Amino acid sequence: MQVHDLLTQYQTGEKTPEETVEQIYDRIKTDETNAWISVREKDAVLADVDALETPAENPLHGIPFAVKDNIDFAGLPTTAGCPAYAYEPYEDATVVSKLIEAGALLIGKTNMDQFATGLVGTRTPHGACRNVHNESYISGGSSSGSAVAVARGHVAFSLGTDTAGSGRVPAAFNGLVGLKPSRGLLSTDGVVPACKSLDCVSVFTHTCKDALLVEEIAAGYDSADPYSRPELSLNTEGETSESLDVESVTVGVPNVASLEFFGDQEAENLYQDAIADVKAVFGEVVTVDFEVFTETADLLYGGPWVAERLAAVEQFVNEQAEEIHPVVREILAGGKEYSAVETFNSFYKLEKLKKRCQEVFVANDIDILATPTTGTVYTISEIREKPIERNSNLGYYTDYVNLLDLSAIAIPTGNFADGPGFGLTLLGDTGEDHLVTTVGEKICAATGETSS
Amino acid sequence: MQVHDLLTQYQTGEKTPEETVEQIYDRIKTDETNAWISVREKDAVLADVDALETPAENPLHGIPFAVKDNIDFAGLPTTAGCPAYAYEPYEDATVVSKLIEAGALLIGKTNMDQFATGLVGTRTPHGACRNVHNESYISGGSSSGSAVAVARGHVAFSLGTDTAGSGRVPAAFNGLVGLKPSRGLLSTDGVVPACKSLDCVSVFTHTCKDALLVEEIAAGYDSADPYSRPELSLNTEGETSESLDVESVTVGVPNVASLEFFGDQEAENLYQDAIADVKAVFGEVVTVDFEVFTETADLLYGGPWVAERLAAVEQFVNEQAEEIHPVVREILAGGKEYSAVETFNSFYKLEKLKKRCQEVFVANDIDILATPTTGTVYTISEIREKPIERNSNLGYYTDYVNLLDLSAIAIPTGNFADGPGFGLTLLGDTGEDHLVTTVGEKICAATGETSS
Repeated sequence: MQVHDLLTQYQTGEKTPEETVEQIYDRIKTDETNAWISVREKDAVLADVDALETPAENPLHGIPFAVKDNIDFAGLPTTAGCPAYAYEPYEDATVVSKLIEAGALLIGKTNMDQFATGLVGTRTPHGACRNVHNESYISGGSSSGSAVAVARGHVAFSLGTDTAGSGRVPAAFNGLVGLKPSRGLLSTDGVVPACKSLDCVSVFTHTCKDALLVEEIAAGYDSADPYSRPELSLNTEGETSESLDVESVTVGVPNVASLEFFGDQEAENLYQDAIADVKAVFGEVVTVDFEVFTETADLLYGGPWVAERLAAVEQFVNEQAEEIHPVVREILAGGKEYSAVETFNSFYKLEKLKKRCQEVFVANDIDILATPTTGTVYTISEIREKPIERNSNLGYYTDYVNLLDLSAIAIPTGNFADGPGFGLTLLGDTGEDHLVTTVGEKICAATGETSS
Repeated sequence: MQVHDLLTQYQTGEKTPEETVEQIYDRIKTDETNAWISVREKDAVLADVDALETPAENPLHGIPFAVKDNIDFAGLPTTAGCPAYAYEPYEDATVVSKLIEAGALLIGKTNMDQFATGLVGTRTPHGACRNVHNESYISGGSSSGSAVAVARGHVAFSLGTDTAGSGRVPAAFNGLVGLKPSRGLLSTDGVVPACKSLDCVSVFTHTCKDALLVEEIAAGYDSADPYSRPELSLNTEGETSESLDVESVTVGVPNVASLEFFGDQEAENLYQDAIADVKAVFGEVVTVDFEVFTETADLLYGGPWVAERLAAVEQFVNEQAEEIHPVVREILAGGKEYSAVETFNSFYKLEKLKKRCQEVFVANDIDILATPTTGTVYTISEIREKPIERNSNLGYYTDYVNLLDLSAIAIPTGNFADGPGFGLTLLGDTGEDHLVTTVGEKICAATGETSS
């Protein structure tokens, strides 16, 4: 179930939005992936279909979607994966209302690592979210259910959030595209914060083209979000989608010594295959010093940004700590240890790292950096054995991206023999959402790996 | 002694740089304002004059200047107003080397509130800096000596730093122009930080035109300063100095209820006179809600930014606290009280305030906000009675400016009967340095208050 496909089918009369809705509810009924936390009544969605304007006025006419349960929809509770934390929002999040205004149909709210703290999909009281290709494996997180709901064909697209990789890791493991927009491009008004200064609303789809369409509709300045950036667009300054010169893009890859697959030879082979495909499309790749990226990644959970997670839910932690998932509780508690002085010192360190990151792009004359999305994958039992260490391994290629203010898209490039997906992430500068997405589309077209 | 005047005198042969240097050293010898911490040997400066290229290649050919003693010059120690902290820099600060390359002559380093923490000029072991108009009054700070050295005719311009108002308050009290550039426009490489994320190098001159010339030479991206902003210039995007439409500028002023003169009726009268002059130049002024600005001001010393001051000198505080001026020590100690969680919460508050500040400009359709630079002035004894409270009063109109990322210029508009100067500050958006300076120039021309 894809966005552009559905739009065409509606246009040709091959299918109606009503039929799509019926099909969705049949699929959800029998599903055992733990993808959903709450689903709207089918009749309410059908009433929305009745109320739709003509297709010509709706770029997402009758397209079903889901949102992660830390994003407000007035009509369902927002839980952030913690039932005791739940509240009933009076208004839709800005991004949700934009999508609904464009004709999209909200089906429900999806399972997640609690308070968006995790990359695994197991840190939830609603049951670990299952990988769509093999139920013994994790789905990835924290936007677990949003990925699985798309991968299972319950919806055509979904929204997640992505602070440390939550919109990219589950895309990789379930064979999807995960677009992590530039910070401040999609409003986070009506979204439960993880790290408020870094959080992004992200998009899961089957194709890069679908992701771009959804982003274009959901993006835009919002005065209700203090981190919304009026000066930012999906295109680099002066560039338009038409003037994008994708043919001449130069792709960088991490130097070999910095590549990390945690002993997983299969993942390494999948990566080499994917890079061979990239070369087939864009010619030679440029090997760049990756150290600045891994050094930045260490700041996210090894520095005061953990305190930012605590700041988001501090009152709840103080009053109802026992209601919090034990692993999440342990991580949040770490936020109490940092002082303001340490925070400022980490900011200085980050500003220096940002400049060094810019230099990596400029000095090597690369437009895009391509890395594995994750260095390996784990089963649900493997994560339960070492819940923090193995979660942390999964962030090796994702943790630094929002700290460095980059745009990113995760694309599917292959599968492990056991089923779970493997993928690349393409990183561009702030505001280069269009570029990373278009480059992603070209690679997907060449590898034929876009699921459908 | 003014920049453009001297350049003309050199050009016409009326005066030579050598004569200027001789004159300066005669003046400094007999001075009792405590303006200087260290002065170069006259012979060294005369050797610099000998080594100068032809005037045509030097926009600041033979122009003498001073820098605050928290700015590095290789050849004199940097003390930041604390002898025990002193170090011998190997290199000039980036801004200093730019000015010297342009032909300017560095005379020495000036007195300051220790670690740039203060707006008074009395928090220094080198003797309270005297107001140029009345030695019983404070000079203002923290860039005290840099203002007094220009006001006394020891140099034609000077550099200060300005975090909370340190480049504006002493300009007002000594009848000078104090230009506080947009954050990140002048490199802070080689400058002892106060609040590293907010610090600006500032410029003292007698005229706005002189200040702009100095800023144009000192400004520019510097990869050595993590807070340097490559995208920023002295002009609003798309604007050039020629296309500036100063005639149609709309000036806003604070609503009456927010104006604060701390019971000083004379200051209020001086303010009303100054606004009458502004109206004579720009027509009616627009009264705007000033609350967002005063609310932001409260964050600077009532929030975690105090910890940023501590972060700058933490090791020294830990090892040699007894060497620190008691008032400064007390303020720095407050920085230990803040947690990382409080820091992030204050950042969120600030982001919201920034948006509200933007709205004040946009909703009222104003280009410039004109406020008093200070609401009153104090004698040195008055400050010694209540060193923290009265210092804090002096920041009422200045503390918020760098937090809100505005450009600013302090201009002289009158004098208290006892002598000390009174002035206005003109505030513009980030990157509108050229606009605020040009507006300042027009007001100075109308009032005839520019000292000469």
